[in-house]
Amino acid sequence: MKEIAGGVCAPRGFRAGGIRAGIKASSPKRDLALVCSEKPCTSAAMFTANRVRAASVLVSRERLAGGNCRAVIANSGNANACTGEAGLAAARRMADLAAEKLAIAPGEAAVASTGVIGVPLPIAVIEAGMDRLVRSLRGDKAGHDAALEGIMTTDTRKKEISLEIEIRGVPVRLGAMVKGSGMIHPNMATMLCFITTDAAVSGPLLDRALRHGVKRSFNRLTVDGDTSTNDMVLVMANGEAGNPPIDAGGVEFEAFQKALESLCVYLARAMARDGEGAGKLLNVAVRGAADEAAAEALAKSVAASNLVKAACFGADANWGRVLCALGYAGVPFDPNAVEVRFAGRRGSLLVCRRGAAVPFSEDEAKGILSEEEVWILVDLGGGDGNGTPPDPLNLGSGEAVAWGCDLTYDYVRINGDYRS
Amino acid sequence: MKEIAGGVCAPRGFRAGGIRAGIKASSPKRDLALVCSEKPCTSAAMFTANRVRAASVLVSRERLAGGNCRAVIANSGNANACTGEAGLAAARRMADLAAEKLAIAPGEAAVASTGVIGVPLPIAVIEAGMDRLVRSLRGDKAGHDAALEGIMTTDTRKKEISLEIEIRGVPVRLGAMVKGSGMIHPNMATMLCFITTDAAVSGPLLDRALRHGVKRSFNRLTVDGDTSTNDMVLVMANGEAGNPPIDAGGVEFEAFQKALESLCVYLARAMARDGEGAGKLLNVAVRGAADEAAAEALAKSVAASNLVKAACFGADANWGRVLCALGYAGVPFDPNAVEVRFAGRRGSLLVCRRGAAVPFSEDEAKGILSEEEVWILVDLGGGDGNGTPPDPLNLGSGEAVAWGCDLTYDYVRINGDYRS
Repeated sequence: MKEIAGGVCAPRGFRAGGIRAGIKASSPKRDLALVCSEKPCTSAAMFTANRVRAASVLVSRERLAGGNCRAVIANSGNANACTGEAGLAAARRMADLAAEKLAIAPGEAAVASTGVIGVPLPIAVIEAGMDRLVRSLRGDKAGHDAALEGIMTTDTRKKEISLEIEIRGVPVRLGAMVKGSGMIHPNMATMLCFITTDAAVSGPLLDRALRHGVKRSFNRLTVDGDTSTNDMVLVMANGEAGNPPIDAGGVEFEAFQKALESLCVYLARAMARDGEGAGKLLNVAVRGAADEAAAEALAKSVAASNLVKAACFGADANWGRVLCALGYAGVPFDPNAVEVRFAGRRGSLLVCRRGAAVPFSEDEAKGILSEEEVWILVDLGGGDGNGTPPDPLNLGSGEAVAWGCDLTYDYVRINGDYRS
Repeated sequence: MKEIAGGVCAPRGFRAGGIRAGIKASSPKRDLALVCSEKPCTSAAMFTANRVRAASVLVSRERLAGGNCRAVIANSGNANACTGEAGLAAARRMADLAAEKLAIAPGEAAVASTGVIGVPLPIAVIEAGMDRLVRSLRGDKAGHDAALEGIMTTDTRKKEISLEIEIRGVPVRLGAMVKGSGMIHPNMATMLCFITTDAAVSGPLLDRALRHGVKRSFNRLTVDGDTSTNDMVLVMANGEAGNPPIDAGGVEFEAFQKALESLCVYLARAMARDGEGAGKLLNVAVRGAADEAAAEALAKSVAASNLVKAACFGADANWGRVLCALGYAGVPFDPNAVEVRFAGRRGSLLVCRRGAAVPFSEDEAKGILSEEEVWILVDLGGGDGNGTPPDPLNLGSGEAVAWGCDLTYDYVRINGDYRS
């Protein structure tokens, strides 16, 4: 597996583009994006678990049921959520416009939106921009960049990746872009993630690989505990790589699934690092749990704790808050067997053994917690943890890693006045 | 039901006191408190749902099983949580010291702690202060005040109440103190609440009334989503009022239970108002739910949302975040029937009808959301809500009220460096 350039345009046969249509009236940034494949695709998608769903989510869920999506049109600056019948009509029109301009079937075009909730989507503005949007399509990194800018809101960094693997000697590529910064919590986020691949892979196996990847990545991510109304992860596979089609489990499928998981984990970490107001990336690893689900629940509980996040902001080695957050995760464990370490580039520091304090250097702890990437390592078995953070792509049984960020003044500032 | 003075010393036969023992080395405030009854009591208590429980919680749970608690010793500045066997021994010793000095049985004395987690409790300091502590006991408001100061941590206000009701013509009194500001979430909080009453009431009925009151108050309170390791609510009833003993359901029990509920609701609201860094009290009322439990889950989800809390801080009428938080509460409802109002002293403002925007004055919204007490009124039935906040003590079926506060810079500041 190697990293390559190009984003969603790295896989053969994909184009992307983006323009400033004028949805974000006050911003000079692009706000409308299109990603599409020249050839038909198999596709898989996952949507928010929130019961309040944006119109784009309702429309895309319905239209993508056939698993043949090959294009997605997306806007930022307006979530088109809580907008009633008019919002649904606007989302349908937006998807129809993309399908018409690209001369594909309605069931081949997805629609996605992100931004403020409860404001009518200015569909006329989008319609007026459609020709420009289609003309902006390019098969290179510049096309990817323009599309990615078009879906960003409070994001401060471009979050993207592209990879190449070999399947039976044939180079196969995957590319992705993601937006997401606040309103992010396990079971997806205010995140839109578009993944392209030139692998030939059947719809059911694409779906299986996506569910696995999302479970191990985006669903272990939390910025603020708020599950958005607009989440969507879409993967489109056009088969242009020419690999022997993957239509059953086996080493080829495993290799593809691992690449997709790796891509998702990379993007989940990138989103945590770019969480609203975040100053640092918080990794929480739990080992020694009864099973993976228990480890996941415990790790997520710690990563989501406002008190842990605030302590992380202050570089305060308040490990008691870690124990506290483990305790309300709803998972049985023995508090008297827990071991906690803080770890970073400069090494690791044991701060709690058998559920109680051990002497440690506050200066050393402050140093570790001041790094840009902090690990909290929890061993429920009072085990032999050597303080080395686990590889999230090679976890043992009863292990899981969750991601979050610190809670900062900037988070409050950004969200105290988002609409203005 | 009328409000009276005196706090926990308002009911006849109770004394309270507090001293600075030196547990909080850097603070001039009292840090050790004692509340006790001259006569034997019936008692009931509830403890944290966190699986990581402070030593004081473990010891009190065990000792109070008989339902005859008549004294509680409590310290601030140290939670005595995650302190291993030594912590358990210290909690037992602390309870024993209180029982010895008051010449009561070990099963009659509870122990409670609040403060930083994971630091050994300086039991020698407490032991050295015991004689002074007992000498500080008084049967008046000054005794109450001293005890209350002794259990406060980041609290900025004294949270206390005392009430008088009549039961069959006999005046019966209830009094209470509570501490709690951060690490507060439904299913109790970092809260210690000690309630006294001179009612004659049997143990089982006292327990029933307490569970009812806690469910309707403290368990609908959230400051930061963190359920503490140390929560405890204790009620002691010494019968000194001389009312005909309440030992069965009926109007007398109902009157007592309502008074206890009223006291708990008052204190829950006071804690939300005094949430760490809080600038305002957030009340969330939900009506039209399938049942009370559904209404409670929805109201709590909104009150706990970091994004709603941050919008409340910024006085930003971002009602979409209210819909979003309802949507991830795990309760079925029709998003297209929801009505949302913001309300305050100056009236109420409809901002969402049938799940979508209605035109409203941003200035008026800003005015309402800038008040010290803000209501978010949610009607799931798209109903005939007239914008009047409900009385939390007289809720209809399918209704619930939850309490929280805004998320502020000060919350981050306070919790970014709590231990220092």
